[in-house]
Amino acid sequence: MTNDPVTAENVIADLLAALPEGAVITSPESLQAYRHDRANDPNAGTPLAVVRATSTDDVQAAVRIAAAEGVAIIPRGAGSGLSGGSSAVDGAIVVSLERMREIRIDPAVQMAVVQPGAFNTEVKAAASEHGLWYPPDPSSQDFCSIGGNVATNAGGLCCVKYGVTSDYVLGLTVVLADGRAVKLGGPRLKDVAGLSLTKLFVGSEGTLGIVTEVVLRLVPAQQPPTTLVAMFPTLAGAIRAVVDIKAAMRPSMLEFMDQVAINAVEDVVRMDLDRTAAAMLLVQSDESEAVAAAQALVIESLCEIAGATEVYATSDPDESEALIAARRMAIPAVERRGALLLEDVGVPLPRLADLVEGVRLIAERNGIEISIVAHAGDGNTHPLLVFDREDAEQRIRADRAFGEVMDLALALDGTITGEHGVGRLKQPWLADYLGDDVLELNLRIKNALDPQNIMNPGAVFGAL
Amino acid sequence: MTNDPVTAENVIADLLAALPEGAVITSPESLQAYRHDRANDPNAGTPLAVVRATSTDDVQAAVRIAAAEGVAIIPRGAGSGLSGGSSAVDGAIVVSLERMREIRIDPAVQMAVVQPGAFNTEVKAAASEHGLWYPPDPSSQDFCSIGGNVATNAGGLCCVKYGVTSDYVLGLTVVLADGRAVKLGGPRLKDVAGLSLTKLFVGSEGTLGIVTEVVLRLVPAQQPPTTLVAMFPTLAGAIRAVVDIKAAMRPSMLEFMDQVAINAVEDVVRMDLDRTAAAMLLVQSDESEAVAAAQALVIESLCEIAGATEVYATSDPDESEALIAARRMAIPAVERRGALLLEDVGVPLPRLADLVEGVRLIAERNGIEISIVAHAGDGNTHPLLVFDREDAEQRIRADRAFGEVMDLALALDGTITGEHGVGRLKQPWLADYLGDDVLELNLRIKNALDPQNIMNPGAVFGAL
Repeated sequence: MTNDPVTAENVIADLLAALPEGAVITSPESLQAYRHDRANDPNAGTPLAVVRATSTDDVQAAVRIAAAEGVAIIPRGAGSGLSGGSSAVDGAIVVSLERMREIRIDPAVQMAVVQPGAFNTEVKAAASEHGLWYPPDPSSQDFCSIGGNVATNAGGLCCVKYGVTSDYVLGLTVVLADGRAVKLGGPRLKDVAGLSLTKLFVGSEGTLGIVTEVVLRLVPAQQPPTTLVAMFPTLAGAIRAVVDIKAAMRPSMLEFMDQVAINAVEDVVRMDLDRTAAAMLLVQSDESEAVAAAQALVIESLCEIAGATEVYATSDPDESEALIAARRMAIPAVERRGALLLEDVGVPLPRLADLVEGVRLIAERNGIEISIVAHAGDGNTHPLLVFDREDAEQRIRADRAFGEVMDLALALDGTITGEHGVGRLKQPWLADYLGDDVLELNLRIKNALDPQNIMNPGAVFGAL
Repeated sequence: MTNDPVTAENVIADLLAALPEGAVITSPESLQAYRHDRANDPNAGTPLAVVRATSTDDVQAAVRIAAAEGVAIIPRGAGSGLSGGSSAVDGAIVVSLERMREIRIDPAVQMAVVQPGAFNTEVKAAASEHGLWYPPDPSSQDFCSIGGNVATNAGGLCCVKYGVTSDYVLGLTVVLADGRAVKLGGPRLKDVAGLSLTKLFVGSEGTLGIVTEVVLRLVPAQQPPTTLVAMFPTLAGAIRAVVDIKAAMRPSMLEFMDQVAINAVEDVVRMDLDRTAAAMLLVQSDESEAVAAAQALVIESLCEIAGATEVYATSDPDESEALIAARRMAIPAVERRGALLLEDVGVPLPRLADLVEGVRLIAERNGIEISIVAHAGDGNTHPLLVFDREDAEQRIRADRAFGEVMDLALALDGTITGEHGVGRLKQPWLADYLGDDVLELNLRIKNALDPQNIMNPGAVFGAL
């Protein structure tokens, strides 16, 4: 946005004057580290400065300067985003929340007050010291931040029973596009006074403001779960079991991995998974012991009816954790096979088999390897498109397949993104998904809250 | 809004031409029935017409005519609102959704597609035919509509474990202020494509548009609960037990009634409740039998430690239901003692004792009887202010006490409304609660979506 060198110099001078020593980064080498998130957006630009904020005040100072000069702001948490939501833009100020990591647990109200840079697992750990639990658990939980989780309304593995980030956000402190800071919601479990602005900001991907504090609802600690693994000779059998299990009970986890993912994981950690299986399900119940045991029997029998060749149940916590760690590692494991384009499409559960089968056909047609891992119980899948970064022609085919997967999801009444966000990589498909009227409604709100379009421009809505 | 008789005549002619026979009501006697909801707003006006819509098309036709003439629209569900959210305005068109009551259950996706006029218990009953459950359960569930539940983000008794209406709304069809109809969200459990507009419309009290269809998430049927009743000689003891129970477990119900409410209920249904008790708690666990039995023992002992004189537990479904029916009847029972001003303030749980004690002092100071019933586990209370409708001086004292209760909640970091909505009765307190900046943010969104201010003008935001 700021190609004028005089403006750029002024902005940097203003930032240096307004912010604490060491908070403003401008050296070209250091700026490189803030150009991309994990989506590796090929179109990412280079910011003119990075502000490593330590407080809401710091964020306000940066936004006020940006607003005065009409300079773009790119909010950034841990940089673990998968859709380019914090790709830098040329001439923008990146506001990094990585140094704002305080966590306060209030056991009496069963809430956490968290700065946006705190990692998801840090919040979980702090809560567990008080016998409490923060459920949302994206696979990246060890290295993703709560701020990023709020920005994308992140999901995870336990969402099938416990819901997504939005279900746990009671309050937010937000720095608006004009530099004002507002508190939305707060430590009240029920509150209907005024519009649901807290919920509006969750999932807004930094396009409406910058979250600098989050009030999270906590719940009592989860029961030790019983975990089942089932191996299937066919994709269709595994999906049938998913639908049947979901109809019979409310599992606390219902995950799917295809053959490529099974093998990629097995390459990394030897777990004696059956490499010949077409698909694997990982299912948990966290009900009380007797109920979980009964549910495990039902799950086992539904898997067998659906053709499972092997079903294994355990209530040993270490063994459970190892199995889940295997699932969490699926994406990095597949990533060893090449560069990834990571999909996040979701469909209503009865369409899941059509989606999985359709993705297989897209892979064949484009000559691209696509591995599928899925939060199957939610109908939310992550087709992983593997390509050779050095092979330009293959990249073109991968890009085409990436779009075709989204088109397929739309045709199946699905969404282009279930939990990763639109960011910049999925932006071109948003209009098709929302339709003109709903897109226009989105833009009216964007424009009402950020009339200069300085908050994360290009993300979600593209060029305005 | 429309005091011009020519405009009024034109609007009525346009409505009669555009809508099906019998859908437009204009006779003065019939209009009277649509002036008030259960809040009995003394300032309610008289509409120029009521449109009893049968479809989204009907609602669009009415809104288009209103938009063209700048006439106000008052959306109305079952008329069970408690804060004047559907009080009529002079010269407005009331759009009643009472005839749109279709319910379709899709057991495969565990969702319900519901028209806004369907009653809450009708949705529950339809879901239960498929072994499914729609949790939110306002006390008015037998005569409140899903549209109204969405408009106010209604709560209820099981919210302490199962959350509020917003947690179950996956999609909405909304008629906007310009008459366009849009579909927001849909039958997808996880979806982060674009801003969270579905959540924004929930709780917007008809100020942004009219909901004509709702996609609701359903969950497997609830386990038969174990119910406990505990009687306390002091308010403080009962509140202490609430806080202790909440710290120890996640009950599926945690309700409070004070002495006035106990006696009012006992007057109506003889349940042998101890009329001398200062307070009563009603607690449920819907965990599996063994866990619920263990939790019942814990609840019993926490109540006894807090000074309960009597604790009674039952897992008999009929007896459970009778006890809960007693709680649900508390508001109508107290209403027999006089006219009511119904409060809905909520505070963080540790402040609950301060709120209850403070309300007692407000009652004494103003010489007004105030009975408290509460969804105590959520910190959400309903102080019921009883006054003699014929006594103007008493009404003034009741109005003063009504405001003082909200001021008290604000001083305790609470909210002016937990689940009933701001409507018109609480509108004067909204600015104090939100503060100037957040109110302005609300108004920017209101203005972006309804620039003519024709959607439920006066509600929530007052005169604009």
